[in-house]
Amino acid sequence: MIIDIHGHYTTAPKALEEWRNRQIAGIAHPAGMPKPSELRIGDDELRESIERNQLRLMRERGLDLTIFSPRASFMAHHIGDFQVSSTWAAICNELCHRVSRLFPDHFVPAAMLPQSPGVDPATSIPELVKCVEQYGNVAINLNPDPSGGHWTSPPLTDRHWYPIYEKMVEYDIPAMIHVSTSCNACFHTTGAHYINADTTAFMQLIQGDLFHDFPTLRLVIPHGGGAAPYHWGRYRGLAQVLKKPALREHLLKNVFFDTCVYHQPGIDLLTKVIPVDNILFASEMIGAVRGIDPETGHNFDDTKRYIEATQDLSPEDRHKIYEGNVRRVYPRLDAALKARGR
Amino acid sequence: MIIDIHGHYTTAPKALEEWRNRQIAGIAHPAGMPKPSELRIGDDELRESIERNQLRLMRERGLDLTIFSPRASFMAHHIGDFQVSSTWAAICNELCHRVSRLFPDHFVPAAMLPQSPGVDPATSIPELVKCVEQYGNVAINLNPDPSGGHWTSPPLTDRHWYPIYEKMVEYDIPAMIHVSTSCNACFHTTGAHYINADTTAFMQLIQGDLFHDFPTLRLVIPHGGGAAPYHWGRYRGLAQVLKKPALREHLLKNVFFDTCVYHQPGIDLLTKVIPVDNILFASEMIGAVRGIDPETGHNFDDTKRYIEATQDLSPEDRHKIYEGNVRRVYPRLDAALKARGR
Repeated sequence: MIIDIHGHYTTAPKALEEWRNRQIAGIAHPAGMPKPSELRIGDDELRESIERNQLRLMRERGLDLTIFSPRASFMAHHIGDFQVSSTWAAICNELCHRVSRLFPDHFVPAAMLPQSPGVDPATSIPELVKCVEQYGNVAINLNPDPSGGHWTSPPLTDRHWYPIYEKMVEYDIPAMIHVSTSCNACFHTTGAHYINADTTAFMQLIQGDLFHDFPTLRLVIPHGGGAAPYHWGRYRGLAQVLKKPALREHLLKNVFFDTCVYHQPGIDLLTKVIPVDNILFASEMIGAVRGIDPETGHNFDDTKRYIEATQDLSPEDRHKIYEGNVRRVYPRLDAALKARGR
Repeated sequence: MIIDIHGHYTTAPKALEEWRNRQIAGIAHPAGMPKPSELRIGDDELRESIERNQLRLMRERGLDLTIFSPRASFMAHHIGDFQVSSTWAAICNELCHRVSRLFPDHFVPAAMLPQSPGVDPATSIPELVKCVEQYGNVAINLNPDPSGGHWTSPPLTDRHWYPIYEKMVEYDIPAMIHVSTSCNACFHTTGAHYINADTTAFMQLIQGDLFHDFPTLRLVIPHGGGAAPYHWGRYRGLAQVLKKPALREHLLKNVFFDTCVYHQPGIDLLTKVIPVDNILFASEMIGAVRGIDPETGHNFDDTKRYIEATQDLSPEDRHKIYEGNVRRVYPRLDAALKARGR
C-alpha cells in the first residue's frame, strides 16, 4: 500500500472560498458575518471535486490512501480573532471529514487547529478532541507561526505549546509542523515561508530538549525537512556546538521528514542523509507546484517517481517509506486500516 | 589559486567587542558613548589574531586568498540608529582593510554597510564609496533584513534597494546577501536565520524582474543558496507557475551560490544541480560551525575536502569554482591580482 501523508483539500468547491470571503468581510462589518449553516456543499459536489482531482491523480500515480487536511494556505490563522479561526477550522475540518466518509478507502483526515496569534494554544483543544473522537482524524497540522510570517509566537520547544503536545501524547497522534499563508511581503508563501518554517522548526528542536519532556511525541517536518537534510552537516555541527547529543539520539526518535521534494537529486540526498525509518512518503498533491517539469515530462509533484528511481533504497526501504513508517508514526491510521482488514 | 569568497573577521581582538559593548550601552546613556578613537588595536594584535586563526587554517587547508568582511553576526544593524550603525561599520571595515594591508597576499576586503531598519539604503553609499575607493574593497555584504529577524524591509526586488544596486553596477562589484544576528527568538542566528534569508532572497528574485533593470548586477547567495538547490525542482516549478523564464535564463546570469555546505552529500547535490559557472568556493571559516565532524575526523567547514571528493567535477570545473568564476564575478579582485602579477 502507498500512503501519501501530506494532501490538502485545495480543490474544495468554490462555495467554500465565497463563504470565507464573506466571513473576512464580516470581521469589519459584523452585520454581514455569515453563519456556518449558510455554507451548503452537497455530497455530489464534494465527490466531484475529489474524483476529478486528487483521486484521479492518485489512481494515475498508483497511490492508495492520502492523509487529508484542510488547505494549508487557507488556514490563515492571522485573519480575525479566535472566534473567526474557530468557526473556519470547524468548517474546513468537517469538509475533510465528509470527504473521508465518501471515500473511506482513499482519504483519512488530519485536522487544522483554530489557532490565532497571541491566543493560548489550549483553546484549540476542543476542536482537536472533536476531530479525533468524532471525525476519526489521525493527526493534526500545527502552525508554529499563526501570525503568518511575523513569527510572534514562542519557539515550539516553549511551554506555550505544551497543552497541544499533552493532548497529542494522550491520543498518540503526530503533528505536521505546517505554516499557512504569508502576510509578510518578504516571504512568498510556498517558496519561502513554508520552507523557512520547516528549517526554523528543525533548528528550534535542536536548541531545545522537547523530547526529554515528551519522549513519545512525534513531529513531521514537511517539504523534505526544509533545508535541514541539505545542510545536515551544519545541523550535526551546531548540535555539537550546543552540547546536544548527536541528532539521531537527540531528535530522530521523534522527528520525521516527508518526501515533498520535487526533483530527483533532492530525493537522492534526502534518502542518503536521513535514516530510512524517518522518511514518510508524501506529494502535497494538489499543492504548491502544479505543472509538468519540462526536464522530465512528468508532474513536479509526482514524488513516487523519484522514490522509485533513487538508487539507495531497497524494496524493504521503499515499503517503509510508503507504508511501514506511516503505520508506526500514525498508529490511529494503522488501527483504522486494520479494522478494515488492510 | 584557491580563493575563499566568504570569510568573516570573527577573531578580532577582544577590544573590538568591548568597544561595541560600550557603544551599545551608550545608546541609553549618551554620556558614556565611546569615541572611535578610543578603540586602539595595534598591528601586532591584528597580525596575531589572523596568523593564529584564519591564516593558520588557510595554510593547513591549502587556501590562498580570502575575501574578508566584518563578522556577520556582529553587524547587528537592528541595534541603535543610523549613526550607531555608521560608526560601527566604519570601525569594522577599517579593521578588515588593515588586515588586507598586513596580509596583502592572503586577504582582500569586502564591506559591511551601515544599514539601519527603516532608513533609506542610500545612506550607506558614502561608506561603500570609501571602502571601494580608499580601502580596495571588491564586494559588499547586503543585509536584506536589518531588523534582525522581523523582516520589516521590502523585498530585494523593490526600488527601495536600487540606490545600492546603482552604485554596485557603477563600481562593478557584487553583493553577498547576508543577514546578521537574529533578535527573534524563533530564529537561531546561524541555524535558521542565515539559511532562511538565503532561501527568502532567492525566492524574492524569482518573483521579481530585478535583472531586467540591472542586467549586470551580481548577487551571491551564501550558505550554498540556503534551501534553493535542495528544492531546485520546487523553484523551477514555481518560476513556471509565476510565468517567469526558466531559472537559467531568469536568474543564473546574475546569481551565484557559495559552497558553505558542511557535508559531502550537500556539496554533491550543489554541484549536480547548479551549473558549475554559478558556484564559488567558500568555507565561512572561522564561522558558524566550529568543530570536527566525528563522521570524517575533519572540520565541518573544511569545504575544500568535499569539493575535491565530489565525483561530478572535472579539474576544469574545480578551477572555475576555486578561481575562474571568482575572477569573473569579482572583477576588482581580478584586477588587483593581475596588478600583482597573479
